[in-house]
Amino acid sequence: MDKFETELWYTEKQTPNHGITTRINRTLHHEKSEYQSIDVMETRQFGNMLVLDGMVMTTDKDEFVYHEMITHVAMNTHPEPKNVLVVGGGDGGAIREILKHPTVETATLVEIDGRVIEVSKQFFPEIAGRLDDPRVQVRVEDGIKHIREHQNAYDVILVDSTEPIGPAVGLFQKPFYQGIYDALREDGIMVAQTESPWFNRDLIRQVFRDISDIFPITRLYTASIPTYPSGLWSFTIGSKKFDPVEVDESKLPHLDTRYYRPEMHKALFQLPQFVQELIEK
Amino acid sequence: MDKFETELWYTEKQTPNHGITTRINRTLHHEKSEYQSIDVMETRQFGNMLVLDGMVMTTDKDEFVYHEMITHVAMNTHPEPKNVLVVGGGDGGAIREILKHPTVETATLVEIDGRVIEVSKQFFPEIAGRLDDPRVQVRVEDGIKHIREHQNAYDVILVDSTEPIGPAVGLFQKPFYQGIYDALREDGIMVAQTESPWFNRDLIRQVFRDISDIFPITRLYTASIPTYPSGLWSFTIGSKKFDPVEVDESKLPHLDTRYYRPEMHKALFQLPQFVQELIEK
Repeated sequence: MDKFETELWYTEKQTPNHGITTRINRTLHHEKSEYQSIDVMETRQFGNMLVLDGMVMTTDKDEFVYHEMITHVAMNTHPEPKNVLVVGGGDGGAIREILKHPTVETATLVEIDGRVIEVSKQFFPEIAGRLDDPRVQVRVEDGIKHIREHQNAYDVILVDSTEPIGPAVGLFQKPFYQGIYDALREDGIMVAQTESPWFNRDLIRQVFRDISDIFPITRLYTASIPTYPSGLWSFTIGSKKFDPVEVDESKLPHLDTRYYRPEMHKALFQLPQFVQELIEK
Repeated sequence: MDKFETELWYTEKQTPNHGITTRINRTLHHEKSEYQSIDVMETRQFGNMLVLDGMVMTTDKDEFVYHEMITHVAMNTHPEPKNVLVVGGGDGGAIREILKHPTVETATLVEIDGRVIEVSKQFFPEIAGRLDDPRVQVRVEDGIKHIREHQNAYDVILVDSTEPIGPAVGLFQKPFYQGIYDALREDGIMVAQTESPWFNRDLIRQVFRDISDIFPITRLYTASIPTYPSGLWSFTIGSKKFDPVEVDESKLPHLDTRYYRPEMHKALFQLPQFVQELIEK
């Protein structure tokens, strides 16, 4: 080793005044797609890292948390999910988790940016590797349009979006949730990633209120994701019939997971006080 | 505002390859005490920040999580904690939380570095402000020595240490936990901060095993702390008699807290799978 080693660090301002910095070995990919900038870096701490518009989307080492947690809470609340839709989620991680449920007949991925799918297949084979499963339908199109054209079609819909700026802004607005309601069957359930309880309190409050106005059952839960802002991430569920806190945990299947456990299913909804206050009137 | 604004950022390598970076307005204090370097900075995101030996100890904005969570789980598991000891914890935050329990007769702080106490009183009045309560005894001495000299003396002991390097290294070793066992009454309970489940897996495994060898009941739980490495922090309980998962939550007092809620007390022990695996043989 040389006396002076070149150190490369990727620094992301997660807020105007705070962020993470992580050492990289090299950049693997950079492009500007039709919708956003797409970067892949090889980091020392977290393996390969996918960055869209300067924001970490996923990494090899902690991706399992986000992908398991956006998927299994809703999937294990619905007693028999057959037709499942992912809006966004071009990396394929949510699809991989959905396919762990044997009831699934079709898993549809609607991603607006086809380049995210291709880049993920190339640099994240562990995440995107199940996109060629015969049950999977990949559609490169606008999620809002797809929702509008598929009424009463899905049992579970996952909104696996980027941050509420850029191409995903419409995925955080009330008309979109109404569209999801209409695209779900009469006992359907949705879940959306809804940012950090530390840094995005107004957004969480607003989304929870919007979903509550549309769905009879609304629930919030969190998970620990070290490469996301604040390390704590929230997910919001809207459900027409089945309440996640009413499931019989003893009957839930034990899937091959590293974060989600059936035994934590109900415990997830016992939120810290400062998070609980975000969803109370 | 000038066209070019000077931006100051504090960057902490939390591991050799990963860290946080946070914008500061100015440094408020720097010294080398007998034991460690002590820095206070005014940050934009988190208010005042206390840094010991280059590691964030606490900030105005997220200190409530650590201080509530190291305190109330053990305090609410013991039915009548009267005499409580904090080893370390010179900022006074754990003492503030202990005093919220009306059964407490004495709260003893044993901090090896008196300068941490003085600096905290000066720059963190919201955290250290209860150190002059008449129930509080502040002793500037070695916690290991204090434990040895006080057998069968405490109902609850909190090990509120710095990282397992520097002055706190002995606080992560098995003979210290045996000393705590002896310093507790026959129905006593201890809790120690035990680092990040993401970055300190070997340490968590070792401490859990050591405490399990000494105490009949051992439990692990976590909390979200954005300024700590990975944003997820663990705490390990050793108990002689009372099991935290057996408490009657309906009888727990509702204290004035922002993170801990009685309703989450048992749910805290439903760990993510990758954390659960750290504490199974």
